[in-house]
Amino acid sequence: MPTSLDLPAVTVLGLGPMGRSLAAAFLAAGVRTTVWNRTPGRDRELTEQGAVSAATAEEAVAAGELIVVSVVNYDAADAILRRDDVTRALKGRTVVNLTADTPRRARDTADWAAAHGIGYLDGAIMTATPSIGTPEAVFLHSGPRDLFAQYRPVLEVLGGTHTHLGEDVGRAATFDIALLDLFWTAMAGYAHAVAIARAEGVTARELAPFAQGIGAILPPLFQQFAEDADSGTYSGEINPITSAASTMSHVVEVAESHGIDAGVMRAVEGMARRVIGLGHGTDGFIRVADMLTRR
Amino acid sequence: MPTSLDLPAVTVLGLGPMGRSLAAAFLAAGVRTTVWNRTPGRDRELTEQGAVSAATAEEAVAAGELIVVSVVNYDAADAILRRDDVTRALKGRTVVNLTADTPRRARDTADWAAAHGIGYLDGAIMTATPSIGTPEAVFLHSGPRDLFAQYRPVLEVLGGTHTHLGEDVGRAATFDIALLDLFWTAMAGYAHAVAIARAEGVTARELAPFAQGIGAILPPLFQQFAEDADSGTYSGEINPITSAASTMSHVVEVAESHGIDAGVMRAVEGMARRVIGLGHGTDGFIRVADMLTRR
Repeated sequence: MPTSLDLPAVTVLGLGPMGRSLAAAFLAAGVRTTVWNRTPGRDRELTEQGAVSAATAEEAVAAGELIVVSVVNYDAADAILRRDDVTRALKGRTVVNLTADTPRRARDTADWAAAHGIGYLDGAIMTATPSIGTPEAVFLHSGPRDLFAQYRPVLEVLGGTHTHLGEDVGRAATFDIALLDLFWTAMAGYAHAVAIARAEGVTARELAPFAQGIGAILPPLFQQFAEDADSGTYSGEINPITSAASTMSHVVEVAESHGIDAGVMRAVEGMARRVIGLGHGTDGFIRVADMLTRR
Repeated sequence: MPTSLDLPAVTVLGLGPMGRSLAAAFLAAGVRTTVWNRTPGRDRELTEQGAVSAATAEEAVAAGELIVVSVVNYDAADAILRRDDVTRALKGRTVVNLTADTPRRARDTADWAAAHGIGYLDGAIMTATPSIGTPEAVFLHSGPRDLFAQYRPVLEVLGGTHTHLGEDVGRAATFDIALLDLFWTAMAGYAHAVAIARAEGVTARELAPFAQGIGAILPPLFQQFAEDADSGTYSGEINPITSAASTMSHVVEVAESHGIDAGVMRAVEGMARRVIGLGHGTDGFIRVADMLTRR
Protein backbone atom coordinates (compact mmCIF):
# COMPACT_ATOMS: atom_id res chain seq x y z
CA MET A 1 0.00 0.00 0.00
CA PRO A 2 1.59 3.28 -1.07
CA THR A 3 1.62 6.13 1.39
CA SER A 4 -0.10 9.37 0.50
CA LEU A 5 3.34 10.82 -0.33
CA ASP A 6 3.47 8.54 -3.38
CA LEU A 7 0.04 9.48 -4.62
CA PRO A 8 -0.70 12.25 -7.12
CA ALA A 9 -2.83 15.25 -6.22
CA VAL A 10 -6.45 14.71 -7.13
CA THR A 11 -9.20 17.08 -8.18
CA VAL A 12 -12.84 16.10 -7.76
CA LEU A 13 -15.29 17.90 -10.04
CA GLY A 14 -18.89 17.50 -8.93
CA LEU A 15 -19.96 17.35 -5.28
CA GLY A 16 -23.22 15.47 -5.35
CA PRO A 17 -23.54 12.62 -2.82
CA MET A 18 -21.15 10.44 -4.87
CA GLY A 19 -18.60 13.19 -5.55
CA ARG A 20 -18.51 14.08 -1.85
CA SER A 21 -18.01 10.41 -0.91
CA LEU A 22 -15.15 10.09 -3.40
CA ALA A 23 -13.46 13.28 -2.16
CA ALA A 24 -13.86 12.18 1.47
CA ALA A 25 -12.21 8.82 0.69
CA PHE A 26 -9.24 10.55 -1.01
CA LEU A 27 -8.89 12.89 1.97
CA ALA A 28 -9.13 10.02 4.47
CA ALA A 29 -6.17 8.39 2.70
CA GLY A 30 -4.13 11.59 2.91
CA VAL A 31 -4.36 12.43 -0.78
CA ARG A 32 -4.04 16.14 -1.60
CA THR A 33 -7.56 16.84 -2.83
CA THR A 34 -9.06 19.90 -4.51
CA VAL A 35 -12.80 20.10 -4.94
CA TRP A 36 -15.19 22.14 -7.06
CA ASN A 37 -18.92 22.13 -7.71
CA ARG A 38 -20.98 24.22 -10.13
CA THR A 39 -23.33 25.20 -7.31
CA PRO A 40 -21.21 26.55 -4.39
CA GLY A 41 -21.64 25.59 -0.76
CA ARG A 42 -21.33 21.82 -1.09
CA ASP A 43 -17.72 21.66 0.10
CA ARG A 44 -17.86 22.73 3.75
CA GLU A 45 -17.47 19.27 5.32
CA LEU A 46 -14.75 18.44 2.81
CA THR A 47 -12.69 21.57 3.51
CA GLU A 48 -12.97 20.74 7.23
CA GLN A 49 -11.38 17.39 6.32
CA GLY A 50 -8.54 19.18 4.51
CA ALA A 51 -9.84 19.64 0.97
CA VAL A 52 -8.78 22.70 -1.01
CA SER A 53 -11.83 24.51 -2.33
CA ALA A 54 -11.35 25.96 -5.81
CA ALA A 55 -13.21 29.05 -6.96
CA THR A 56 -13.42 27.91 -10.59
CA ALA A 57 -13.26 24.61 -12.47
CA GLU A 58 -10.06 25.66 -14.27
CA GLU A 59 -8.43 26.52 -10.94
CA ALA A 60 -9.51 23.13 -9.57
CA VAL A 61 -8.10 21.34 -12.62
CA ALA A 62 -4.79 23.21 -12.37
CA ALA A 63 -4.36 21.99 -8.77
CA GLY A 64 -4.62 18.26 -9.58
CA GLU A 65 -2.76 15.68 -11.64
CA LEU A 66 -5.72 13.30 -11.79
CA ILE A 67 -9.13 14.85 -12.42
CA VAL A 68 -12.05 12.77 -11.14
CA VAL A 69 -15.42 13.75 -12.59
CA SER A 70 -18.69 12.74 -10.92
CA VAL A 71 -21.71 14.62 -12.22
CA VAL A 72 -25.24 13.65 -13.24
CA ASN A 73 -24.51 12.78 -16.90
CA TYR A 74 -22.20 13.63 -19.80
CA ASP A 75 -24.14 16.75 -20.74
CA ALA A 76 -23.17 18.09 -17.32
CA ALA A 77 -19.61 16.79 -17.69
CA ASP A 78 -19.24 18.41 -21.13
CA ALA A 79 -20.58 21.71 -19.79
CA ILE A 80 -17.64 21.72 -17.37
CA LEU A 81 -14.80 20.05 -19.28
CA ARG A 82 -15.36 21.56 -22.73
CA ARG A 83 -15.23 25.20 -21.67
CA ASP A 84 -12.05 26.58 -23.30
CA ASP A 85 -10.37 27.62 -20.05
CA VAL A 86 -10.97 24.23 -18.50
CA THR A 87 -9.93 22.30 -21.61
CA ARG A 88 -6.66 24.26 -21.69
CA ALA A 89 -6.03 23.54 -18.01
CA LEU A 90 -6.66 19.81 -18.60
CA LYS A 91 -3.89 19.47 -21.21
CA GLY A 92 -1.28 16.94 -20.00
CA ARG A 93 -3.50 15.79 -17.16
CA THR A 94 -5.69 12.68 -16.90
CA VAL A 95 -9.45 12.61 -16.46
CA VAL A 96 -11.20 9.65 -14.83
CA ASN A 97 -14.83 10.17 -15.68
CA LEU A 98 -16.97 8.27 -13.16
CA THR A 99 -20.14 9.89 -14.49
CA ALA A 100 -22.77 7.41 -15.71
CA ASP A 101 -23.91 7.69 -19.32
CA THR A 102 -23.89 5.69 -22.55
CA PRO A 103 -20.94 3.90 -24.22
CA ARG A 104 -21.27 6.24 -27.21
CA ARG A 105 -20.84 9.32 -25.01
CA ALA A 106 -17.82 7.74 -23.32
CA ARG A 107 -16.15 7.07 -26.69
CA ASP A 108 -17.01 10.56 -27.90
CA THR A 109 -15.45 12.11 -24.80
CA ALA A 110 -12.32 9.98 -25.24
CA ASP A 111 -11.99 11.29 -28.82
CA TRP A 112 -12.38 14.86 -27.59
CA ALA A 113 -9.79 14.27 -24.86
CA ALA A 114 -7.28 12.78 -27.32
CA ALA A 115 -7.73 15.80 -29.63
CA HIS A 116 -6.81 18.10 -26.71
CA GLY A 117 -3.85 16.18 -25.27
CA ILE A 118 -5.81 14.98 -22.25
CA GLY A 119 -5.46 11.46 -20.82
CA TYR A 120 -8.83 9.80 -20.51
CA LEU A 121 -10.21 6.85 -18.55
CA ASP A 122 -13.89 6.08 -18.29
CA GLY A 123 -15.31 4.44 -15.20
CA ALA A 124 -18.52 3.31 -13.56
CA ILE A 125 -19.37 2.86 -9.91
CA MET A 126 -21.70 -0.12 -9.47
CA THR A 127 -22.42 0.42 -5.78
CA ALA A 128 -24.13 3.14 -3.75
CA THR A 129 -22.36 6.01 -1.99
CA PRO A 130 -22.12 4.30 1.44
CA SER A 131 -19.87 1.64 -0.18
CA ILE A 132 -17.16 4.17 -1.11
CA GLY A 133 -14.02 3.62 0.96
CA THR A 134 -15.21 0.14 2.00
CA PRO A 135 -14.47 -3.33 0.56
CA GLU A 136 -18.03 -3.42 -0.89
CA ALA A 137 -17.40 -0.75 -3.54
CA VAL A 138 -17.28 -1.97 -7.15
CA PHE A 139 -15.51 0.18 -9.76
CA LEU A 140 -15.29 -0.64 -13.46
CA HIS A 141 -12.74 1.09 -15.69
CA SER A 142 -11.92 1.17 -19.38
CA GLY A 143 -9.47 3.00 -21.61
CA PRO A 144 -5.67 2.94 -22.05
CA ARG A 145 -4.21 0.16 -19.92
CA ASP A 146 -1.03 2.11 -19.07
CA LEU A 147 -3.01 5.10 -17.82
CA PHE A 148 -5.08 2.79 -15.63
CA ALA A 149 -1.93 1.12 -14.27
CA GLN A 150 -0.44 4.55 -13.53
CA TYR A 151 -3.44 5.79 -11.53
CA ARG A 152 -4.64 2.50 -10.06
CA PRO A 153 -2.89 3.13 -6.70
CA VAL A 154 -4.68 6.40 -6.08
CA LEU A 155 -8.00 5.02 -7.35
CA GLU A 156 -7.66 2.09 -4.95
CA VAL A 157 -7.87 4.40 -1.93
CA LEU A 158 -11.56 4.62 -2.90
CA GLY A 159 -11.88 1.05 -1.62
CA GLY A 160 -13.49 -2.06 -3.09
CA THR A 161 -12.56 -3.71 -6.35
CA HIS A 162 -11.27 -1.96 -9.47
CA THR A 163 -11.58 -3.95 -12.69
CA HIS A 164 -10.04 -2.78 -15.97
CA LEU A 165 -12.41 -4.09 -18.64
CA GLY A 166 -10.31 -3.27 -21.68
CA GLU A 167 -8.89 -0.57 -23.92
CA ASP A 168 -12.23 0.16 -25.61
CA VAL A 169 -13.18 3.17 -23.52
CA GLY A 170 -16.89 2.31 -23.97
CA ARG A 171 -16.68 -0.95 -22.04
CA ALA A 172 -17.18 0.47 -18.55
CA ALA A 173 -20.35 2.24 -19.70
CA THR A 174 -21.50 -0.91 -21.52
CA PHE A 175 -21.19 -3.03 -18.39
CA ASP A 176 -22.73 -0.22 -16.36
CA ILE A 177 -25.77 0.09 -18.63
CA ALA A 178 -26.27 -3.68 -18.94
CA LEU A 179 -26.00 -4.20 -15.18
CA LEU A 180 -28.29 -1.28 -14.38
CA ASP A 181 -30.75 -2.70 -16.90
CA LEU A 182 -30.72 -5.95 -14.91
CA PHE A 183 -30.82 -4.17 -11.54
CA TRP A 184 -33.73 -1.82 -12.22
CA THR A 185 -35.75 -4.40 -14.11
CA ALA A 186 -35.37 -6.77 -11.15
CA MET A 187 -36.32 -4.01 -8.72
CA ALA A 188 -39.40 -3.25 -10.82
CA GLY A 189 -40.31 -6.94 -10.59
CA TYR A 190 -39.94 -6.75 -6.83
CA ALA A 191 -42.05 -3.59 -6.48
CA HIS A 192 -44.74 -5.19 -8.64
CA ALA A 193 -44.61 -8.41 -6.62
CA VAL A 194 -45.15 -6.36 -3.45
CA ALA A 195 -48.16 -4.66 -5.06
CA ILE A 196 -49.71 -8.03 -6.03
CA ALA A 197 -49.03 -9.50 -2.60
CA ARG A 198 -50.66 -6.50 -0.88
CA ALA A 199 -53.73 -6.71 -3.07
CA GLU A 200 -54.12 -10.32 -1.88
CA GLY A 201 -53.60 -9.38 1.78
CA VAL A 202 -49.92 -10.32 2.09
CA THR A 203 -47.47 -7.73 3.45
CA ALA A 204 -44.09 -6.91 1.93
CA ARG A 205 -42.42 -8.17 5.11
CA GLU A 206 -44.20 -11.53 4.81
CA LEU A 207 -43.10 -11.84 1.20
CA ALA A 208 -39.52 -10.66 1.81
CA PRO A 209 -37.92 -13.92 3.04
CA PHE A 210 -39.21 -15.75 -0.03
CA ALA A 211 -38.21 -12.88 -2.32
CA GLN A 212 -34.72 -13.20 -0.87
CA GLY A 213 -34.87 -16.91 -1.72
CA ILE A 214 -35.63 -16.01 -5.34
CA GLY A 215 -32.76 -13.51 -5.27
CA ALA A 216 -30.44 -16.25 -4.07
CA ILE A 217 -31.23 -18.59 -6.98
CA LEU A 218 -30.61 -15.92 -9.63
CA PRO A 219 -26.77 -15.75 -9.68
CA PRO A 220 -26.16 -19.42 -10.64
CA LEU A 221 -28.90 -19.14 -13.27
CA PHE A 222 -27.19 -16.04 -14.71
CA GLN A 223 -24.01 -18.09 -15.12
CA GLN A 224 -25.82 -21.04 -16.68
CA PHE A 225 -27.84 -18.82 -19.05
CA ALA A 226 -24.64 -17.00 -20.07
CA GLU A 227 -23.21 -20.36 -21.18
CA ASP A 228 -26.44 -21.08 -23.06
CA ALA A 229 -26.49 -17.64 -24.68
CA ASP A 230 -22.86 -17.70 -25.83
CA SER A 231 -23.04 -21.29 -27.07
CA GLY A 232 -26.46 -20.82 -28.68
CA THR A 233 -27.89 -23.91 -26.98
CA TYR A 234 -30.82 -22.32 -25.07
CA SER A 235 -31.86 -25.57 -23.43
CA GLY A 236 -35.46 -25.45 -22.22
CA GLU A 237 -35.53 -29.01 -20.95
CA ILE A 238 -36.23 -28.05 -17.34
CA ASN A 239 -38.24 -24.92 -18.04
CA PRO A 240 -39.37 -24.36 -21.65
CA ILE A 241 -40.39 -20.82 -22.60
CA THR A 242 -43.95 -22.05 -23.27
CA SER A 243 -44.23 -22.84 -19.57
CA ALA A 244 -42.71 -19.46 -18.62
CA ALA A 245 -45.19 -17.65 -20.88
CA SER A 246 -48.09 -19.46 -19.21
CA THR A 247 -46.82 -18.32 -15.81
CA MET A 248 -46.43 -14.76 -17.08
CA SER A 249 -50.04 -14.67 -18.26
CA HIS A 250 -51.14 -15.73 -14.76
CA VAL A 251 -49.16 -12.85 -13.28
CA VAL A 252 -50.78 -10.40 -15.70
CA GLU A 253 -54.23 -11.83 -14.94
CA VAL A 254 -53.84 -11.54 -11.16
CA ALA A 255 -52.38 -8.02 -11.33
CA GLU A 256 -55.03 -6.68 -13.66
CA SER A 257 -57.84 -8.38 -11.70
CA HIS A 258 -56.83 -6.04 -8.87
CA GLY A 259 -56.53 -3.00 -11.14
CA ILE A 260 -52.73 -3.13 -10.93
CA ASP A 261 -50.91 -2.04 -14.07
CA ALA A 262 -49.06 -5.01 -15.59
CA GLY A 263 -47.28 -3.19 -18.40
CA VAL A 264 -43.87 -4.56 -17.45
CA MET A 265 -45.01 -8.19 -17.35
CA ARG A 266 -47.07 -7.69 -20.50
CA ALA A 267 -43.86 -6.59 -22.24
CA VAL A 268 -41.96 -9.56 -20.78
CA GLU A 269 -44.68 -12.00 -21.85
CA GLY A 270 -44.71 -10.37 -25.28
CA MET A 271 -41.03 -11.22 -25.74
CA ALA A 272 -41.68 -14.82 -24.68
CA ARG A 273 -44.67 -15.12 -27.04
CA ARG A 274 -42.61 -13.78 -29.92
CA VAL A 275 -39.88 -16.36 -29.28
CA ILE A 276 -42.59 -19.06 -29.30
CA GLY A 277 -44.05 -17.57 -32.48
CA LEU A 278 -40.65 -17.79 -34.13
CA GLY A 279 -40.72 -21.55 -33.53
CA HIS A 280 -38.54 -21.77 -30.41
CA GLY A 281 -41.15 -22.76 -27.82
CA THR A 282 -39.10 -25.65 -26.44
CA ASP A 283 -36.07 -23.40 -25.84
CA GLY A 284 -35.30 -21.79 -22.50
CA PHE A 285 -36.24 -18.18 -21.76
CA ILE A 286 -32.74 -16.84 -22.46
CA ARG A 287 -33.56 -17.36 -26.18
CA VAL A 288 -35.12 -13.91 -25.73
CA ALA A 289 -31.62 -12.40 -25.74
CA ASP A 290 -31.05 -13.95 -29.17
CA MET A 291 -34.34 -12.66 -30.55
CA LEU A 292 -33.57 -9.15 -29.27
CA THR A 293 -30.16 -9.02 -30.96
CA ARG A 294 -30.64 -10.88 -34.26
CA ARG A 295 -32.95 -9.46 -36.85
CA MET B 1 -38.61 -39.42 10.55
CA PRO B 2 -41.59 -41.74 10.04
CA THR B 3 -41.08 -44.96 8.13
CA SER B 4 -43.11 -45.64 5.02
CA LEU B 5 -45.38 -47.89 7.13
CA ASP B 6 -46.72 -44.78 8.87
CA LEU B 7 -47.39 -42.91 5.67
CA PRO B 8 -50.69 -42.86 3.79
CA ALA B 9 -51.03 -44.17 0.25
CA VAL B 10 -50.61 -41.38 -2.29
CA THR B 11 -52.04 -40.87 -5.75
CA VAL B 12 -50.30 -38.56 -8.20
CA LEU B 13 -52.52 -37.13 -10.94
CA GLY B 14 -50.53 -35.61 -13.79
CA LEU B 15 -47.22 -37.02 -15.01
CA GLY B 16 -45.50 -34.09 -16.62
CA PRO B 17 -41.86 -33.54 -15.58
CA MET B 18 -42.96 -32.24 -12.14
CA GLY B 19 -45.57 -34.95 -11.52
CA ARG B 20 -43.05 -37.65 -12.42
CA SER B 21 -40.47 -36.12 -10.05
CA LEU B 22 -43.03 -36.01 -7.22
CA ALA B 23 -44.10 -39.63 -7.79
CA ALA B 24 -40.48 -40.78 -7.95
CA ALA B 25 -39.75 -39.07 -4.61
CA PHE B 26 -42.76 -40.76 -2.95
CA LEU B 27 -41.64 -44.13 -4.35
CA ALA B 28 -38.04 -43.60 -3.23
CA ALA B 29 -39.36 -43.12 0.32
CA GLY B 30 -41.35 -46.35 0.16
CA VAL B 31 -44.76 -44.66 -0.06
CA ARG B 32 -47.44 -46.72 -1.81
CA THR B 33 -47.96 -44.60 -4.93
CA THR B 34 -50.58 -44.80 -7.66
CA VAL B 35 -50.13 -42.70 -10.79
CA TRP B 36 -52.34 -41.57 -13.63
CA ASN B 37 -51.97 -39.24 -16.59
CA ARG B 38 -54.53 -38.11 -19.15
CA THR B 39 -52.20 -39.08 -21.98
CA PRO B 40 -51.05 -42.69 -21.36
CA GLY B 41 -47.47 -43.93 -21.61
CA ARG B 42 -45.84 -41.50 -19.19
CA ASP B 43 -45.65 -43.97 -16.29
CA ARG B 44 -43.20 -46.63 -17.48
CA GLU B 45 -40.20 -45.53 -15.39
CA LEU B 46 -42.46 -45.05 -12.37
CA THR B 47 -44.03 -48.51 -12.55
CA GLU B 48 -40.50 -49.93 -12.79
CA GLN B 49 -39.87 -48.15 -9.47
CA GLY B 50 -42.98 -49.74 -7.96
CA ALA B 51 -45.80 -47.35 -8.82
CA VAL B 52 -49.27 -48.72 -9.46
CA SER B 53 -50.54 -47.52 -12.81
CA ALA B 54 -54.28 -46.73 -12.80
CA ALA B 55 -56.38 -47.04 -15.94
CA THR B 56 -58.69 -44.16 -15.02
CA ALA B 57 -58.52 -41.08 -12.79
CA GLU B 58 -61.34 -42.41 -10.54
CA GLU B 59 -59.46 -45.70 -10.11
CA ALA B 60 -56.30 -43.74 -9.25
CA VAL B 61 -58.17 -41.62 -6.72
CA ALA B 62 -59.75 -44.69 -5.10
CA ALA B 63 -56.29 -46.19 -4.49
CA GLY B 64 -54.93 -43.22 -2.51
CA GLU B 65 -55.68 -41.38 0.72
CA LEU B 66 -53.83 -38.23 -0.33
CA ILE B 67 -54.33 -37.08 -3.92
CA VAL B 68 -51.50 -34.94 -5.26
CA VAL B 69 -52.37 -32.98 -8.39
CA SER B 70 -49.68 -31.57 -10.68
CA VAL B 71 -51.00 -30.43 -14.04
CA VAL B 72 -50.47 -27.39 -16.26
CA ASN B 73 -53.17 -25.15 -14.74
CA TYR B 74 -56.55 -25.24 -12.98
CA ASP B 75 -58.48 -25.69 -16.21
CA ALA B 76 -56.63 -28.98 -16.59
CA ALA B 77 -57.12 -29.82 -12.90
CA ASP B 78 -60.86 -29.09 -13.10
CA ALA B 79 -61.20 -31.25 -16.21
CA ILE B 80 -59.94 -34.17 -14.12
CA LEU B 81 -61.30 -33.51 -10.63
CA ARG B 82 -64.77 -32.21 -11.52
CA ARG B 83 -65.87 -35.21 -13.60
CA ASP B 84 -68.69 -36.81 -11.58
CA ASP B 85 -67.01 -40.21 -11.19
CA VAL B 86 -63.81 -38.63 -9.97
CA THR B 87 -65.57 -36.18 -7.64
CA ARG B 88 -67.47 -39.09 -6.05
CA ALA B 89 -64.25 -41.06 -5.60
CA LEU B 90 -62.59 -38.02 -3.95
CA LYS B 91 -65.20 -37.78 -1.18
CA GLY B 92 -63.52 -38.24 2.25
CA ARG B 93 -60.06 -37.95 0.73
CA THR B 94 -57.68 -34.98 0.68
CA VAL B 95 -56.38 -33.20 -2.40
CA VAL B 96 -53.07 -31.33 -2.35
CA ASN B 97 -53.14 -29.26 -5.51
CA LEU B 98 -49.59 -28.37 -6.50
CA THR B 99 -50.75 -26.96 -9.83
CA ALA B 100 -49.81 -23.32 -10.42
CA ASP B 101 -52.60 -20.85 -11.08
CA THR B 102 -54.18 -17.76 -9.52
CA PRO B 103 -55.32 -17.24 -5.89
CA ARG B 104 -58.91 -16.86 -7.12
CA ARG B 105 -58.86 -20.28 -8.78
CA ALA B 106 -57.37 -21.83 -5.63
CA ARG B 107 -60.16 -20.37 -3.47
CA ASP B 108 -62.79 -21.43 -5.99
CA THR B 109 -61.45 -24.99 -5.98
CA ALA B 110 -61.45 -25.05 -2.18
CA ASP B 111 -65.13 -24.01 -2.21
CA TRP B 112 -65.92 -26.78 -4.69
CA ALA B 113 -64.02 -29.32 -2.58
CA ALA B 114 -65.86 -28.29 0.61
CA ALA B 115 -69.19 -28.66 -1.17
CA HIS B 116 -68.27 -32.25 -2.09
CA GLY B 117 -66.81 -33.41 1.22
CA ILE B 118 -63.22 -33.33 -0.06
CA GLY B 119 -60.30 -32.11 2.05
CA TYR B 120 -58.33 -29.44 0.18
CA LEU B 121 -54.87 -27.97 0.50
CA ASP B 122 -53.34 -25.69 -2.11
CA GLY B 123 -49.63 -25.65 -2.71
CA ALA B 124 -46.93 -24.18 -4.89
CA ILE B 125 -43.50 -25.52 -5.78
CA MET B 126 -41.01 -22.67 -6.05
CA THR B 127 -38.10 -24.71 -7.40
CA ALA B 128 -37.48 -26.67 -10.59
CA THR B 129 -37.99 -30.43 -10.98
CA PRO B 130 -34.35 -31.41 -10.23
CA SER B 131 -34.81 -29.99 -6.71
CA ILE B 132 -37.56 -32.50 -5.81
CA GLY B 133 -36.34 -34.96 -3.19
CA THR B 134 -33.38 -32.72 -2.32
CA PRO B 135 -32.90 -30.09 0.43
CA GLU B 136 -33.18 -27.35 -2.25
CA ALA B 137 -36.90 -27.88 -2.92
CA VAL B 138 -39.22 -25.11 -1.69
CA PHE B 139 -42.90 -25.92 -1.14
CA LEU B 140 -45.55 -23.43 -0.04
CA HIS B 141 -48.88 -24.60 1.34
CA SER B 142 -52.13 -22.99 2.42
CA GLY B 143 -55.49 -24.18 3.66
CA PRO B 144 -56.73 -25.88 6.84
CA ARG B 145 -53.90 -26.11 9.36
CA ASP B 146 -55.02 -29.50 10.73
CA LEU B 147 -55.08 -31.06 7.27
CA PHE B 148 -51.58 -29.74 6.62
CA ALA B 149 -50.36 -31.12 9.95
CA GLN B 150 -51.92 -34.49 9.14
CA TYR B 151 -50.22 -34.85 5.75
CA ARG B 152 -47.02 -32.96 6.45
CA PRO B 153 -45.02 -36.18 7.12
CA VAL B 154 -45.80 -37.67 3.72
CA LEU B 155 -45.30 -34.32 1.96
CA GLU B 156 -41.90 -33.99 3.59
CA VAL B 157 -40.59 -37.06 1.75
CA LEU B 158 -40.61 -34.70 -1.28
CA GLY B 159 -37.60 -32.99 0.32
CA GLY B 160 -36.78 -29.33 0.95
CA THR B 161 -38.80 -26.94 3.05
CA HIS B 162 -42.57 -26.98 3.49
CA THR B 163 -44.07 -23.72 4.76
CA HIS B 164 -47.71 -23.41 5.76
CA LEU B 165 -48.64 -19.81 4.89
CA GLY B 166 -52.04 -19.72 6.54
CA GLU B 167 -55.62 -20.92 6.45
CA ASP B 168 -56.59 -18.66 3.52
CA VAL B 169 -56.23 -21.24 0.76
CA GLY B 170 -55.26 -18.49 -1.73
CA ARG B 171 -52.01 -17.64 0.05
CA ALA B 172 -49.81 -20.26 -1.59
CA ALA B 173 -50.91 -19.06 -5.03
CA THR B 174 -50.46 -15.42 -3.96
CA PHE B 175 -46.85 -16.02 -2.89
CA ASP B 176 -46.31 -18.14 -6.00
CA ILE B 177 -47.59 -15.45 -8.37
CA ALA B 178 -45.73 -12.62 -6.60
CA LEU B 179 -42.46 -14.57 -6.55
CA LEU B 180 -42.80 -15.66 -10.18
CA ASP B 181 -43.49 -12.02 -11.06
CA LEU B 182 -40.18 -11.12 -9.45
CA PHE B 183 -38.35 -14.09 -10.97
CA TRP B 184 -39.44 -13.67 -14.58
CA THR B 185 -39.13 -9.89 -14.53
CA ALA B 186 -35.56 -10.27 -13.25
CA MET B 187 -34.80 -12.90 -15.88
CA ALA B 188 -36.17 -10.56 -18.56
CA GLY B 189 -33.82 -7.88 -17.24
CA TYR B 190 -30.93 -10.32 -17.52
CA ALA B 191 -31.81 -11.42 -21.07
CA HIS B 192 -32.08 -7.75 -22.08
CA ALA B 193 -28.76 -6.92 -20.41
CA VAL B 194 -27.14 -9.74 -22.41
CA ALA B 195 -28.61 -8.31 -25.62
CA ILE B 196 -27.26 -4.82 -24.85
CA ALA B 197 -23.85 -6.20 -23.90
CA ARG B 198 -23.63 -8.20 -27.14
CA ALA B 199 -24.57 -5.21 -29.24
CA GLU B 200 -21.61 -3.38 -27.66
CA GLY B 201 -19.23 -6.33 -28.22
CA VAL B 202 -19.38 -7.85 -24.72
CA THR B 203 -20.23 -11.55 -24.38
CA ALA B 204 -22.72 -12.99 -21.90
CA ARG B 205 -19.86 -14.88 -20.22
CA GLU B 206 -17.91 -11.63 -19.74
CA LEU B 207 -20.96 -9.98 -18.21
CA ALA B 208 -21.95 -12.97 -16.03
CA PRO B 209 -19.62 -12.45 -13.03
CA PHE B 210 -20.84 -8.86 -12.66
CA ALA B 211 -24.46 -9.90 -13.20
CA GLN B 212 -23.95 -12.36 -10.35
CA GLY B 213 -22.65 -9.45 -8.27
CA ILE B 214 -25.89 -7.57 -8.95
CA GLY B 215 -27.85 -10.70 -8.02
CA ALA B 216 -25.99 -10.86 -4.72
CA ILE B 217 -26.94 -7.31 -3.69
CA LEU B 218 -30.66 -7.83 -4.37
CA PRO B 219 -31.71 -9.94 -1.32
CA PRO B 220 -30.70 -7.41 1.37
CA LEU B 221 -32.34 -4.65 -0.70
CA PHE B 222 -35.55 -6.69 -0.88
CA GLN B 223 -35.58 -6.85 2.92
CA GLN B 224 -34.85 -3.13 3.31
CA PHE B 225 -37.46 -2.14 0.71
CA ALA B 226 -40.03 -4.39 2.41
CA GLU B 227 -39.50 -2.40 5.61
CA ASP B 228 -39.87 0.83 3.62
CA ALA B 229 -42.99 -0.40 1.83
CA ASP B 230 -44.78 -1.63 4.96
CA SER B 231 -43.86 1.44 7.01
CA GLY B 232 -44.59 3.87 4.15
CA THR B 233 -41.23 5.62 4.52
CA TYR B 234 -39.81 5.07 1.02
CA SER B 235 -36.51 6.76 1.81
CA GLY B 236 -34.71 7.91 -1.33
CA GLU B 237 -31.79 9.49 0.47
CA ILE B 238 -29.18 7.20 -1.10
CA ASN B 239 -30.91 6.66 -4.41
CA PRO B 240 -33.87 8.93 -5.22
CA ILE B 241 -36.25 7.77 -7.94
CA THR B 242 -35.30 10.81 -10.07
CA SER B 243 -31.80 9.35 -10.30
CA ALA B 244 -33.17 5.89 -11.09
CA ALA B 245 -35.37 7.31 -13.87
CA SER B 246 -32.35 9.05 -15.40
CA THR B 247 -30.49 5.72 -15.43
CA MET B 248 -33.49 3.98 -16.99
CA SER B 249 -33.63 6.50 -19.82
CA HIS B 250 -29.96 5.77 -20.57
CA VAL B 251 -30.75 2.05 -20.76
CA VAL B 252 -33.63 2.73 -23.18
CA GLU B 253 -31.42 5.02 -25.28
CA VAL B 254 -28.59 2.50 -25.59
CA ALA B 255 -30.94 -0.42 -26.36
CA GLU B 256 -32.89 1.46 -29.01
CA SER B 257 -29.71 2.92 -30.57
CA HIS B 258 -28.90 -0.71 -31.42
CA GLY B 259 -32.42 -1.51 -32.62
CA ILE B 260 -33.09 -3.55 -29.48
CA ASP B 261 -36.67 -3.42 -28.22
CA ALA B 262 -36.79 -1.65 -24.84
CA GLY B 263 -40.46 -2.17 -24.06
CA VAL B 264 -39.79 -3.63 -20.63
CA MET B 265 -37.52 -0.78 -19.51
CA ARG B 266 -39.86 1.79 -21.08
CA ALA B 267 -42.62 0.37 -18.88
CA VAL B 268 -40.33 0.42 -15.82
CA GLU B 269 -39.26 4.00 -16.53
CA GLY B 270 -42.91 4.93 -17.04
CA MET B 271 -43.71 3.80 -13.51
CA ALA B 272 -40.80 5.81 -12.12
CA ARG B 273 -41.82 8.93 -14.11
CA ARG B 274 -45.39 8.63 -12.83
CA VAL B 275 -44.16 8.46 -9.22
CA ILE B 276 -42.10 11.60 -9.89
CA GLY B 277 -45.13 13.23 -11.53
CA LEU B 278 -47.18 12.50 -8.43
CA GLY B 279 -44.68 14.58 -6.43
CA HIS B 280 -42.56 11.80 -4.90
CA GLY B 281 -39.30 12.35 -6.81
CA THR B 282 -37.15 12.32 -3.68
CA ASP B 283 -38.58 8.96 -2.55
CA GLY B 284 -36.89 5.65 -3.26
CA PHE B 285 -37.96 3.43 -6.16
CA ILE B 286 -40.08 1.13 -3.97
CA ARG B 287 -42.63 3.98 -3.89
CA VAL B 288 -43.73 2.39 -7.18
CA ALA B 289 -45.38 -0.42 -5.18
CA ASP B 290 -47.48 2.21 -3.42
CA MET B 291 -48.50 3.90 -6.66
CA LEU B 292 -49.49 0.56 -8.18
CA THR B 293 -51.76 -0.34 -5.27
CA ARG B 294 -53.33 2.97 -4.21
CA ARG B 295 -55.61 4.75 -6.60
